[in-house]
Parts: sequence; structure tokens; C-alpha cells
Amino acid sequence: MDIAAYMSEVGQQARAAATLVARSTTAVRNKALLATAEALDKARDELAEANRKDLDQGRENGLDAAMLDRLGLTSQRIDTMIEGLRQVASLPDPIGEITDMTYRPSGIQVGKMRVPLGVIGIIYESRPNVTVEAASLCLKSGNATILRGGSESIHSNQAIARCIAWGLAEAGLPETAVQVVKTIDRAAVGELITMPKYVDVIVPRGGKGLIERISNDARVPVIKHLDGVCHVYVDSHADPEKALRVAVNAKTHRYGTCNTMETLLVDREIAEDILPLMASAFAEKGVELRGCELTRAIIDAREATELDWEAEYLAPILAVRVVDGLDGAIEHINRYSSQHTDSIITENYTRARRFLTEVDSSSVMINASTRFADGFEYGLGAEIGISTDKIHARGPVGLEGLTSQKYVVFGDGHIRA
Amino acid sequence: MDIAAYMSEVGQQARAAATLVARSTTAVRNKALLATAEALDKARDELAEANRKDLDQGRENGLDAAMLDRLGLTSQRIDTMIEGLRQVASLPDPIGEITDMTYRPSGIQVGKMRVPLGVIGIIYESRPNVTVEAASLCLKSGNATILRGGSESIHSNQAIARCIAWGLAEAGLPETAVQVVKTIDRAAVGELITMPKYVDVIVPRGGKGLIERISNDARVPVIKHLDGVCHVYVDSHADPEKALRVAVNAKTHRYGTCNTMETLLVDREIAEDILPLMASAFAEKGVELRGCELTRAIIDAREATELDWEAEYLAPILAVRVVDGLDGAIEHINRYSSQHTDSIITENYTRARRFLTEVDSSSVMINASTRFADGFEYGLGAEIGISTDKIHARGPVGLEGLTSQKYVVFGDGHIRA
Repeated sequence: MDIAAYMSEVGQQARAAATLVARSTTAVRNKALLATAEALDKARDELAEANRKDLDQGRENGLDAAMLDRLGLTSQRIDTMIEGLRQVASLPDPIGEITDMTYRPSGIQVGKMRVPLGVIGIIYESRPNVTVEAASLCLKSGNATILRGGSESIHSNQAIARCIAWGLAEAGLPETAVQVVKTIDRAAVGELITMPKYVDVIVPRGGKGLIERISNDARVPVIKHLDGVCHVYVDSHADPEKALRVAVNAKTHRYGTCNTMETLLVDREIAEDILPLMASAFAEKGVELRGCELTRAIIDAREATELDWEAEYLAPILAVRVVDGLDGAIEHINRYSSQHTDSIITENYTRARRFLTEVDSSSVMINASTRFADGFEYGLGAEIGISTDKIHARGPVGLEGLTSQKYVVFGDGHIRA
Repeated sequence: MDIAAYMSEVGQQARAAATLVARSTTAVRNKALLATAEALDKARDELAEANRKDLDQGRENGLDAAMLDRLGLTSQRIDTMIEGLRQVASLPDPIGEITDMTYRPSGIQVGKMRVPLGVIGIIYESRPNVTVEAASLCLKSGNATILRGGSESIHSNQAIARCIAWGLAEAGLPETAVQVVKTIDRAAVGELITMPKYVDVIVPRGGKGLIERISNDARVPVIKHLDGVCHVYVDSHADPEKALRVAVNAKTHRYGTCNTMETLLVDREIAEDILPLMASAFAEKGVELRGCELTRAIIDAREATELDWEAEYLAPILAVRVVDGLDGAIEHINRYSSQHTDSIITENYTRARRFLTEVDSSSVMINASTRFADGFEYGLGAEIGISTDKIHARGPVGLEGLTSQKYVVFGDGHIRA
């Protein structure tokens, strides 16, 4: 198989389909989503059979239990995919919205119209349900999609792709509007991220290694989601009860998510009062603490090294550092944070205001758990990822992140003087 | 000189300065702009002297008259730079604006705050006034800037850089907030566009060759401005008087701009009526016509080839094609347009609506001259360029295009359930 020729054909077809999807009505795109849900429901046996092949092969190739779990397409996960499609269908259509329409002194009216990006390439790892999730968001926002899943889930992904194709056809849309790459050859990824003629943006979903590799090699814009080294800073003017509640939630609500707190910063002025309370709360949850010298003078903790300030543990481990007030906190955060999500706990208006302005992260919070940094919690209705970039989309990315705006100008024979 | 080490130092300094500029108040940044204007006014002799060196060297190196003209820093051009600084100072500050603040069901309040991008790299060619223009827009929007002008204007640019440094110092901002690269070694550009750690976005200003080269090699997002192959489509339901007025303005108001019409499309149904009127109007202006076969059956014109449909003439030459109604026009535009600016002339509501939706260009117009596609005409107050990209900024880019938005979350000890 000539991978370059194959991918170029996939790209050409996606580009052609993108024009038709962009012109389609909201009703047609929603019909395709609902018909795909129907198809998945009817294809449960076929999906189970395809998934069994992937699981068997995975076991043969020695995948660990966690990977096999992510790979599994249980009946419950199929239910979730179906429910997800219905939810996306029920979201408002972002496309075609015209905003900021004003008259200019010349007499023309100028506004902005929201339009699809065109063709979106999605590169992801084992979980086959991403195929439906990503495809549905791209389709809803009027884009064509090229999906490249992990080689370990190729059979499951192709079975899902057949359901999507059926759904598209039912709605009268071209089946090439959503294409799942048919080869497991890694060269396909290399082609996909270097076809600016056919692909408008790449969204990689997966580990840091995958995303860094893709960002380095891409010749197409990438909506990146790197790591989440999130902080909670407990200011000396914090309400201790709120501080404890938020810190415990930010760390222990879920350990493996990117918006989980990884480092707790405590103002030196209240360290002696608050740290013992924190220590016992985290001990109760079985969280291991790693502290700076000042922390360890107050509570029991392993010694933290420079590596701990940079760590995204994704585990019941928390780095703790005593800092010199707000300045010390901001300095630490702007040095070690991955610019994902950081929160201050304080009752002090001026410090809250400064934290909001001076912390350069995609989500900056006051008296709230970092765990709120999420497309659904923010009311985006859906989430394709959380961008740690500053360009185009920053923070949780919903349907709007998959769109662009063009200028529209209404005149009546107006000319430039 | 070790270019890599030098550029890395420039980058580091810019990154450090960016934090201070981002935190500075509107008043401080405006003060720096106005002080720079003052410095330019006082440094007229020094600027003239530096510019003389560049012009002498340019003549020695055989630059043509047009390039020498662009290079010249006349007293009038200095006035324009000063006036430009004052205008930018008077624009509203985009930074810090919080929008879309709403309560979520969880009780948190979520909104978006406009923030600077960080460090912006500008790469441009001979015109030294771009140094002031670009630096002022980046500074106003809270960013640090690294400017890399053409080697032919190095003395003028360094003299301008000294005025900017003085202005920054007057306002108490670090002089490294605006750095003009001190070497003419081309390797500096290569470094500048591959330092994602220090540079957040690159804005190249110049010819197509420069921009394509930079886009290909950059490891940093680029706000691109490629060519402008703009169309006016005269529909059969057009008001002939408006059609003539707009077409003539779109072509002849200025020949050398990217929003100038390069191809006129005429609906077959009215070609026989409108083309003779167009031909005589353009003949009067001295515009050479290159037509398709159907055009040439009606009016005198040179034969147009495939190359004419792709041409950005930037000259008194116009390609003319008769098309099969709206479908033919949209097909031609989506194939040959550079997705810059395209306009339909029609009184028909449904056709206007379809054109607006189906033409995938950064500006789509109804009954208006393509020459309106401009930051000032659109009310942006300023323009750093016109983006032909879809990601981040599309169409004329003003101050907002040099910013990003972060999420802000207000809680009262809220935790995720």
C-alpha cells in the first residue's frame, strides 16, 4: 500500500466533503448524528465481534490490564456513545451565527459569521469511543473529519466507522465526511499532519509523548493539550474551611485527570495553622505529601525535590510548598505551572484581583476547585479537549473551538472613497 | 557573533519583559506610546542620518527606485509614525476585558478574560515605519515584541529602536519589551521562528515568498497573509449601475493592494448587456482586460489562460469570465480565490444569502467593493495585517488578534460533586 497516495486520496475526499457538510443545514447534520446512534444500537453484535478481535490481539501483544480496559467496548460504553450522539445532536448549532453587526461611517454594515474550520484531523490512542465522540463534535460544527486511532483498536474503529457512514448516508451527506484511516502503518500519521492543502487543524488526544511528537512534526496548526500541573494557593486571608474543602476536592475528587491539583502552595503567614489540618485531611484520603523544608518543619512529609514542583503525578501524591505571600505564589506558579488551571483561596479582594490578572494560565480561579476546568462544567455542552495553547483556543475546547469566523459585509453599491 | 546564543538571549529577555508588560496598566502603556512619539519628533536629525546610511548602502547595492522609495524615512513619514502612535494610544485597551460571565448550575461563575499573547515576533522587509507600527500595536495589546526588519534598513530601524526604548523607559517599562534584532545575519530569522519557549506567534509582513518560507520553517504559530485574488460576481439580478460602480472601484481605486479585484465574474444571462458597459468603463481607466471565450465573443479582450484565474496582478489588468449563474460563480471562486475577499452584486435575496454562506473567504460581501476589506474600514482601529488563515485570526487583524482569552472562575469554596 502506498501510504502517501492513500492519505492524499483520503485528504482530497475530506476536502470535497467539507464543502458539502459546511453547506448542510442543522437538521441534516443532526439527522446524521441520530442515525449513527441508531446504527450503533443495531450493530451491537458486530461491534462486540470486532472489539473481541482487538482484545485478543491486544492480549497476544502483551497489553497491560489498564490498556485492555480502555480498549474494551462494553455494552455500557456503547450506550454511552449512543447517549453522547443524542446529546451532541441536541446542542445549538454554532454555524452561521452572525455577531457584532454594525454600521460603519462609510455606510457598509460589517459583522462576523461563524463558519466551520474545514477538515479536522484527530489522532488518538486506544479508546475506540473517541471515534464517535470526536466525529460527532466535528460533524455538528460543520467540519469533515479524518480520524486516526491506535493500531490496537483498528477493528473496533472500523466497525464504528461503518455505523457513522450509514448515519451520514441516511442524512444524505457524503460518507467521506468522516473517514477512519484504514491502515495501521504509522506513516499515515506523518502524512496526515503534513497535508495543509487538505487538513486545516490537527487535534491529538493522548499522552504527552504523542502530542509533543505531533506538534514537532506537524505542518498544520495543532490544538495541543499538554500536561496539567495545577496549583491551589491558600492565602493568609483564606477562609480555612473553604481552603480545606477546595484543596481536598482538587486533589482527591479524581487522581488521574489533568485538572487535578498537583502542588499545594501555602502562605507562610498561616502555614502553622493550616498545614496540620491539611495533613490530617490528606492522610485520611491516603495522599502522600512531599514538602519543602518549611513544610516539613510543621508537618510530616517526604522531602520534595525540584522534580516534584514539575510533576504531574496523576496519583495520590501531593507536593506542598510554603511561599512568601501572593508574590511567592505567583512566582512559583508562573515558573512551574503548565498554564492549565490554578486557583487562589482568599477572602481578600485585592489579592484575588491580582491573582486573576497575573497568573497566566488557561483557567484562573478564585475559591473554587481546579476540577471545574472542564467543558461541561463551563457550559460548553461538549469538549474535544483542553488547550494549553494561547493561539485560537485556550482552555476547554467545545464546538466553538472547531469553528472560525469570517467577515460579512452588506452594502448597497457602496464603494471606497 | 553566535547568532543562536544572541537570539536566545533576546528571547529570554522578551519573555521576562512580557510578564511586566502584561501586568502594566493601560495608562503606563499609553504613556510609553506617547513618549515614543515625542522621542521620534526630537530625533528627526538622528533618524535622517541613519536613514541616509541605509539609502547610500541601498544605492551601492543596486536597489531599484521602488525599494529605495519604500526605504526612505522622509519628514512626512516621520509625521505619520508620530500620528500613528498617538492614534494607537487613543484606542480602547483590549486587555482585561471580561465577557460572557454566567452562573453555572454548580454555582460557580465562569467568564473569559482577554489577555496578551505574550511575545510576538515580527518579520518584515524594507519599510522602516513598520518598526513603529508593529511595535505600537503589540505594546498596546500588552505584548513584548521582537522585530526583525530587512537588512537594508538596519540603521533606520536601530535609530527608531532607540526612540522606542526611550519611550518605554519614560513609562517605567523594560526596554526589552520591544527589541529590534541587531544583526543582519539571516540566521537570526531561522532562530526567531523556532523558539516556541520564547515566542508565542510570528507575524510576517512582506511578499508571498517571505511568508511561505517562514510558514514552512516555523515551529511557532504564524499569522499568515498570503495573496489576495479577489472576485466581484455580477449576478443576473444585479442593479447594473451598482455593478459598474463597485467593479470599477474594486479594480481601480488602488491597483497594488491585496483587496483589489483581480477577476470579474459575470452571469451568462446578463453578459451581453453588462460586459460592453464594463469594457468601456475599464477602457476609460486604462485597464487591460483578459477574457474567457464567452467574454471575447461580446467584447474585445486578450485571451485569458488558466494562469489568469490564479493571478494576483496588482496592476491595471483584469481577468473577466462569464459563468453559469451563482453556481458557476461559487465554483470558480472556491477553486481560484485565495479566500481573501469576494463580493456578489445582486438584488436577489436568496442568491445573496447563498453567496454569503457558500463562499469560503475571510471577507464575503454583498453589493460592496472588495476594497473595504481593511482593519480601519471594519472599525478595528488598527491593522497588523490581513490573515488568510482560518485558525485564531481571519481577515483584517486588529489589536484583538494579538490577544487571547483565558477562563476565569469565581467561587465561594465551591467543589466538584
